[in-house]
Amino acid sequence: MDQNSEVRALLDQVRQGNLSVDQAMERLRIEPFEDLGYAKVDHHRAIRQGVPEVVYCAGKTPEQTAGITESLLKRSQANVLLTRATPAHFEAVRKVDDRAEFREMARCIVIHRDSTLYGLGTIMVLTGGTSDMPVAEEAAVTAETLGNKVERVYDVGVAGIHRLLSQSERIMRANVLIAVAGMEGALASVVAGLVDRPVIAVPTSVGYGANFGGLAALLTMINSCASGVSVVNIDNGFGAGYMAALINRPPRAGDQ
Amino acid sequence: MDQNSEVRALLDQVRQGNLSVDQAMERLRIEPFEDLGYAKVDHHRAIRQGVPEVVYCAGKTPEQTAGITESLLKRSQANVLLTRATPAHFEAVRKVDDRAEFREMARCIVIHRDSTLYGLGTIMVLTGGTSDMPVAEEAAVTAETLGNKVERVYDVGVAGIHRLLSQSERIMRANVLIAVAGMEGALASVVAGLVDRPVIAVPTSVGYGANFGGLAALLTMINSCASGVSVVNIDNGFGAGYMAALINRPPRAGDQ
Amino acid sequence: MDQNSEVRALLDQVRQGNLSVDQAMERLRIEPFEDLGYAKVDHHRAIRQGVPEVVYCAGKTPEQTAGITESLLKRSQANVLLTRATPAHFEAVRKVDDRAEFREMARCIVIHRDSTLYGLGTIMVLTGGTSDMPVAEEAAVTAETLGNKVERVYDVGVAGIHRLLSQSERIMRANVLIAVAGMEGALASVVAGLVDRPVIAVPTSVGYGANFGGLAALLTMINSCASGVSVVNIDNGFGAGYMAALINRPPRAGDQ
Amino acid sequence: MDQNSEVRALLDQVRQGNLSVDQAMERLRIEPFEDLGYAKVDHHRAIRQGVPEVVYCAGKTPEQTAGITESLLKRSQANVLLTRATPAHFEAVRKVDDRAEFREMARCIVIHRDSTLYGLGTIMVLTGGTSDMPVAEEAAVTAETLGNKVERVYDVGVAGIHRLLSQSERIMRANVLIAVAGMEGALASVVAGLVDRPVIAVPTSVGYGANFGGLAALLTMINSCASGVSVVNIDNGFGAGYMAALINRPPRAGDQ
Amino acid sequence: MDQNSEVRALLDQVRQGNLSVDQAMERLRIEPFEDLGYAKVDHHRAIRQGVPEVVYCAGKTPEQTAGITESLLKRSQANVLLTRATPAHFEAVRKVDDRAEFREMARCIVIHRDSTLYGLGTIMVLTGGTSDMPVAEEAAVTAETLGNKVERVYDVGVAGIHRLLSQSERIMRANVLIAVAGMEGALASVVAGLVDRPVIAVPTSVGYGANFGGLAALLTMINSCASGVSVVNIDNGFGAGYMAALINRPPRAGDQ
Amino acid sequence: MDQNSEVRALLDQVRQGNLSVDQAMERLRIEPFEDLGYAKVDHHRAIRQGVPEVVYCAGKTPEQTAGITESLLKRSQANVLLTRATPAHFEAVRKVDDRAEFREMARCIVIHRDSTLYGLGTIMVLTGGTSDMPVAEEAAVTAETLGNKVERVYDVGVAGIHRLLSQSERIMRANVLIAVAGMEGALASVVAGLVDRPVIAVPTSVGYGANFGGLAALLTMINSCASGVSVVNIDNGFGAGYMAALINRPPRAGDQ
Amino acid sequence: MDQNSEVRALLDQVRQGNLSVDQAMERLRIEPFEDLGYAKVDHHRAIRQGVPEVVYCAGKTPEQTAGITESLLKRSQANVLLTRATPAHFEAVRKVDDRAEFREMARCIVIHRDSTLYGLGTIMVLTGGTSDMPVAEEAAVTAETLGNKVERVYDVGVAGIHRLLSQSERIMRANVLIAVAGMEGALASVVAGLVDRPVIAVPTSVGYGANFGGLAALLTMINSCASGVSVVNIDNGFGAGYMAALINRPPRAGDQ
Amino acid sequence: MDQNSEVRALLDQVRQGNLSVDQAMERLRIEPFEDLGYAKVDHHRAIRQGVPEVVYCAGKTPEQTAGITESLLKRSQANVLLTRATPAHFEAVRKVDDRAEFREMARCIVIHRDSTLYGLGTIMVLTGGTSDMPVAEEAAVTAETLGNKVERVYDVGVAGIHRLLSQSERIMRANVLIAVAGMEGALASVVAGLVDRPVIAVPTSVGYGANFGGLAALLTMINSCASGVSVVNIDNGFGAGYMAALINRPPRAGDQ
Repeated sequence: MDQNSEVRALLDQVRQGNLSVDQAMERLRIEPFEDLGYAKVDHHRAIRQGVPEVVYCAGKTPEQTAGITESLLKRSQANVLLTRATPAHFEAVRKVDDRAEFREMARCIVIHRDSTLYGLGTIMVLTGGTSDMPVAEEAAVTAETLGNKVERVYDVGVAGIHRLLSQSERIMRANVLIAVAGMEGALASVVAGLVDRPVIAVPTSVGYGANFGGLAALLTMINSCASGVSVVNIDNGFGAGYMAALINRPPRAGDQ
Repeated sequence: MDQNSEVRALLDQVRQGNLSVDQAMERLRIEPFEDLGYAKVDHHRAIRQGVPEVVYCAGKTPEQTAGITESLLKRSQANVLLTRATPAHFEAVRKVDDRAEFREMARCIVIHRDSTLYGLGTIMVLTGGTSDMPVAEEAAVTAETLGNKVERVYDVGVAGIHRLLSQSERIMRANVLIAVAGMEGALASVVAGLVDRPVIAVPTSVGYGANFGGLAALLTMINSCASGVSVVNIDNGFGAGYMAALINRPPRAGDQ
Repeated sequence: MDQNSEVRALLDQVRQGNLSVDQAMERLRIEPFEDLGYAKVDHHRAIRQGVPEVVYCAGKTPEQTAGITESLLKRSQANVLLTRATPAHFEAVRKVDDRAEFREMARCIVIHRDSTLYGLGTIMVLTGGTSDMPVAEEAAVTAETLGNKVERVYDVGVAGIHRLLSQSERIMRANVLIAVAGMEGALASVVAGLVDRPVIAVPTSVGYGANFGGLAALLTMINSCASGVSVVNIDNGFGAGYMAALINRPPRAGDQ
Repeated sequence: MDQNSEVRALLDQVRQGNLSVDQAMERLRIEPFEDLGYAKVDHHRAIRQGVPEVVYCAGKTPEQTAGITESLLKRSQANVLLTRATPAHFEAVRKVDDRAEFREMARCIVIHRDSTLYGLGTIMVLTGGTSDMPVAEEAAVTAETLGNKVERVYDVGVAGIHRLLSQSERIMRANVLIAVAGMEGALASVVAGLVDRPVIAVPTSVGYGANFGGLAALLTMINSCASGVSVVNIDNGFGAGYMAALINRPPRAGDQ
Repeated sequence: MDQNSEVRALLDQVRQGNLSVDQAMERLRIEPFEDLGYAKVDHHRAIRQGVPEVVYCAGKTPEQTAGITESLLKRSQANVLLTRATPAHFEAVRKVDDRAEFREMARCIVIHRDSTLYGLGTIMVLTGGTSDMPVAEEAAVTAETLGNKVERVYDVGVAGIHRLLSQSERIMRANVLIAVAGMEGALASVVAGLVDRPVIAVPTSVGYGANFGGLAALLTMINSCASGVSVVNIDNGFGAGYMAALINRPPRAGDQ
Repeated sequence: MDQNSEVRALLDQVRQGNLSVDQAMERLRIEPFEDLGYAKVDHHRAIRQGVPEVVYCAGKTPEQTAGITESLLKRSQANVLLTRATPAHFEAVRKVDDRAEFREMARCIVIHRDSTLYGLGTIMVLTGGTSDMPVAEEAAVTAETLGNKVERVYDVGVAGIHRLLSQSERIMRANVLIAVAGMEGALASVVAGLVDRPVIAVPTSVGYGANFGGLAALLTMINSCASGVSVVNIDNGFGAGYMAALINRPPRAGDQ
Repeated sequence: MDQNSEVRALLDQVRQGNLSVDQAMERLRIEPFEDLGYAKVDHHRAIRQGVPEVVYCAGKTPEQTAGITESLLKRSQANVLLTRATPAHFEAVRKVDDRAEFREMARCIVIHRDSTLYGLGTIMVLTGGTSDMPVAEEAAVTAETLGNKVERVYDVGVAGIHRLLSQSERIMRANVLIAVAGMEGALASVVAGLVDRPVIAVPTSVGYGANFGGLAALLTMINSCASGVSVVNIDNGFGAGYMAALINRPPRAGDQ
Repeated sequence: MDQNSEVRALLDQVRQGNLSVDQAMERLRIEPFEDLGYAKVDHHRAIRQGVPEVVYCAGKTPEQTAGITESLLKRSQANVLLTRATPAHFEAVRKVDDRAEFREMARCIVIHRDSTLYGLGTIMVLTGGTSDMPVAEEAAVTAETLGNKVERVYDVGVAGIHRLLSQSERIMRANVLIAVAGMEGALASVVAGLVDRPVIAVPTSVGYGANFGGLAALLTMINSCASGVSVVNIDNGFGAGYMAALINRPPRAGDQ
């Protein structure tokens, strides 16, 4: 690795008398963390193939977003994913790269440059209702941009349990599942009871009154009586898609 | 009725000149509400046949409980129901009336004096887990003491949805349903999706961590996406049993 | 029924040798839940006579709403109820079916096609104040659309208890009661103390400061010291009207 | 008054040349606040006739409590009130002054030395249930110890409104009212609707589940739709009794 | 009183044989509460001299507000107070009665018709900061409209304690005090420590971050360590002004 | 599978004319869910190799626990895991099977019968402090009992970041990570920033004051700014261990 | 000091017989607090050199803001700082004094009149992300306006710990540190673990879902497991900058 | 410093050919963080002179506590501070080192070995009431053990403002102030308004009802309208004492 070879080069120079101990001390002292930091990033970049460059657009102007995108496009050959984007963001980004696509429901902009399939199995995204679809699409688009095959099973809330059960064959074939639900958020528990694969639960802020902006669904999911469920933040479709993609990648085997 | 006849007697006395208008005014003035109150109670008593006398034992000594029971036994021929009772309460009450039975899991004492069946259909009590059974039993015993046929379907939580579905035939035959669940409390929504009869949801304090003493289950149930669900307080088995019994009684028809 | 006749047709074909067992297996295997689902819906439809098709308009465009309405009108001859509707939704729906009526205060659109009275008694809707009327009207219109006789008793909050008591004769004649109140939400307890029929409590978000969007009224109602009260979500007039309608229907008798 | 005369004496000494300006400055400089403090206390003491010396026993040992009592007895001739006291506290205090009485339900110890009636009218203490009585008694004993006539109207919760209304004549005669209630805490609103005098609302921690240690009752009372209600802390009977006593005292007239 | 004379007339008719006992029973049965209700209102009206007719404008259109005002003007000769009013409300109300004045900062419209001074002493309104002034003015205008002399002491928050103390002479002369404060809300405790008269605390929603819309100030005030403080809802200037006016009225003496 | 063959047998009988269509209809109608339920369980058991039988001991007597264990031992040859166990539970369980081991810090009893390694890589459990160790051990023992290699890295809280960084080589070799932390719960974010594998975050109730029983740590973790983190309930070591074990199993590949 | 000399003058007059004791009493009585108040302010002004005049613009019109600024400019020669300012505020203030500068990101207007460096060391402001920069800039500008050298280290959130560590040399040279972070707010703990100087933590409302307007970050910071951290209100950059400036001033030595 | 000299020695060996580059790489690779960690600790230790070794006893057995103490005594010559200690902890620790003193009210054990005064000025600890004293003493003992002069000003709550003001001379002489208060927690604001030095606010859990375990005081303090206040966790006397001690140390001057 780079950093290692830098240190080795430095030690070689010391050994050969080309660098004094004091000079070596100085170089080691000044940037130990920084080198380490960069080394880590480099090392990771190799492993993190297919991980897109990500921009969170909320609170950024279209111009800022376009500027960041421009610089990201140069940094790697990975896909670029912009979340929480508006049509205005899209207009600006499209001028930077006309491959940019706007996934309106997901509120995402994607610049596709790497079509490798990194995921091993299928990631399935389920929603309780149709209003949960924007969050679900953010998860789905994120997982796709990370190189995964994604299936969508929407509007299968637990109040009409037969709708969910009628999909159980498909559900059982998924490798990772993302259960997106607002209101009472019970979908994750039922899904986790049907499968033996990891379920990522995403509470949404869909609902009113005592759902308190998604708190009710969050508490439901965190208290799930089913095994094999873990939870991300309210409306955090990106986080769920990213987590699912990590799980769906080839594992780091034990003998490594 | 008593109060009516008292007022009639008073008016008779006025008409017959045995009571001056001033004296009548005075008597009507002093206790208008109280009389009314008793009238209401009397009037209701006729309708409320089979409504037990109820004592909430928490915070009362065994002696106080026994004293109240003794006086209630004289007031009517209805059943007597003591909730949140301990063995010590039972010891004291049994001395007052040896018909007293202790329903240990329900934490209830029942003195059965009226075995009339007042309910029209079956009240079904379901629980998510075995730990919810004390609350469920409080609901069941309450409904039974109010003269209802009760069926119990326990440990059918949504994380193993087939357990619940395997009971769906029975579930669909019930007239009123009580869904008792802690942790994430999703049972009520699933049950309400299966039936077309009223479902009373009872959140329990079963669980730990972010269930916050039953708050998580309460919010889940209040936010239920299913139609035909309403909710009582955390651990309030008595309230659910009572509500279910009212629903299960003959309706007050429109032409009354 | 359709699904039953489909299964029967399939079995007939098997019996007649027109369909191999494997082919039959395949057809039964692929959609067991879905079929079941339809079966359940069909089975229910018979019982659920008078249950309207319902659309929750919040978050849907007028066009989407109109499209859904169009398809629902074909599905059954039941009434159609659209809740949380705006004038714009109404404009779009009226073009689909000019029988559509806009109940402005209730924020509901109703397409009346079935005028059968399914309810046995009267459903009474009470409010604490005039600001609670939109939620109360949503409950009332829902109950009416489900085929019930509804009486309204508005602005009888507990701070002027005589206003409520002056209606007590009417109140006592109702079969099911819906108590709608914001601010401190005490109406449900007082009403439940006056009657011996089920009371559905609806907290509203009416108020300010420490009512925290209806939380105060919700907690009041959930903690009601009166028996025979259960609670739905804040501002959930539809849920209360639906629950009341279920209670007001002929019971499912015990020997069924 | 003492402090005034001290300052006057000091000024007299300056005028007579017995105290240098520097010495006077020094004495005024060192304790300006303290003197002022005492002055304020002294000045107030004249006005605050009948205000008892108060000890909050929770967290104090019986010995500490007795010691404080001993010193308070010397400080004035006012009554002494010890709140949140246990039998052990009483044992210790009785040794200091055998006039000490233990009001067990109120958890108060009273040493009565001043039987003047300072209050102008009657202070009425009402409770929703019998479990609210300890808090109500703390309020009542506090008001009595401050020299007021107190009437108790207990167990008149709003779920049986006739019990409250049957007392309405008495209620309307009170000058200040204290409404003590747990669970849903609706009593204060109803009482304030009946009278035209100030109502102090005291939420209690009586209840379970979603009452969250009295929070539900507190929110109910703070959100009261009735005019003329203000609220003290959960279980703060002392605070309510004290506030009511201040209101019941002769007013500070405008021309003062 | 009316109701009494109605009952007396009825009894007279019975005595004279002009009304049968059954007829009398019927009339007493039908409207006992209603009569009582009106009686109570009438009875109160005599006592409640100077209590304004009040309209809460929030959520009402200018036209509705004007209509209600018009009818209130006929009902009594009392002042009319409209709270939470906007300039649009004022425009509409002024057309109904040109005596209407708009107190802009208080967001109140007042129609002054009764200039009697009903209060005995001075009501003092204090604020922690200038941003609390709208709530304080609502309290002040309410108290004035109820016939009280009001003094304002604004911007005396506890972080600059000398500003408050420099007003202590004036503060000590008030008969009732209203402490209005947002942010940390400590003003009420300090004021109550300075005086021996009742203090009404009004938390405001002024602040940001962890003040949670006034919750922080509410909790501070409810937990006040000073005696003689009670609290109304966040931003409820009207409630505080009304409560203070009740306290400032002549007491209902004990021998009544 | 059983259920399939039952249906096939039924169809065969229909085809052969041994069963009428009506009789077949009847049998299909009666137990569709129940069969399905059992089928699902059987089907899953084959897949869920190595999944232990689990008993949650909290709230169960030692005798109940032993009885359940006895029956579970017969049901399969899998490991048996008892969580939240006390020494008394262990005493009772050991009598049933003397292979039972008590993992005291984890509060778990394990009966080891299957030593197959089902996991592909290493599961690493990290804690912020030593007080988080009981929850971490519950996670570790759960993962081990599910057939995984587990490494422990304890007491590496973020306030001394060098302790965590000094383990970064080991950390980067793990396939799944479990970050257990109370107080401010920041560990999960830092760990997720170091690795490119899934991190399960477990908030603990360790701390005091404003940690509100683990709520603070839960909110921290749910709001993590790092990608690749999902969260389980407060103190839910079992849930984290189970989730990690599912992730660590061979994936369900896409072509399945 | 003024007040002292006033009192001395008064005492002199008494001593010389030019003022009677009664007159002196009167003057001492009327304004003890006021004098004290002014004295305190004067006394402080000397010490508080370099403390700017501060205006909180939120809720004030541009005209009000300009008016206040005009009067503040006359009161002292200190810098003037206007926080939470908009461009409209700036337009108005610039007309009053054209030295006014608008720090847009900080939402602050500064009128620089005193360029003395009052702080002893460097105040370092760190942020977790770029969205935290407005709050950080408010802190930085506040500290600068109070006469401090400020260094900014932005976007060093804990999810990429190497970014923070690469700055550790600079971080360790600061005298006071301000850690500004939203979302999970873990930055403060990590920074406090790296340094041995005081860290002021500022939670921001940056984030969404379960961050509840900054509550999550606030709780994280309050529960920090690192020593040497204290916290200000959510988004309170001004408060943090002011606190840091006080700490950075020359200490009040022990022998004073 | 040690670590530097270790690295230097290593480089020297490389230069002299006594260590191969590979061997050097290996040694640098294995423990880069750990070395760094120790370096940081060592480096800090020089600066952190007088920082005691600290043990948090809650949740540790007396034996564990004694063991840790024994090892800490060897690590440095600094004072040893054990917080949240019980008499049992003290018994065990005293056996390890008989210089151990038990500060009972502070719940601290101190082993004094370094009596250097590291602090520049006085740290003043103030409390609102006597019940806040244990937390205040924890703060005071912590600051003393860190080598500071501490003054205590207890029971000066804002409800009796003269008690606080009578100490204002002393208060103004302190270099750092710690304001400890429960209930409404207003003390910090008033103190910060009196001084121009940093104030650390410590909310305590003293109180009942709506103080919610100290949350009310925490919110009050976080929302303080006074400048120069920052807050630590509820009951965190140690944290406040430590923060105050850091502030009271000689600053790290700008040219360093």
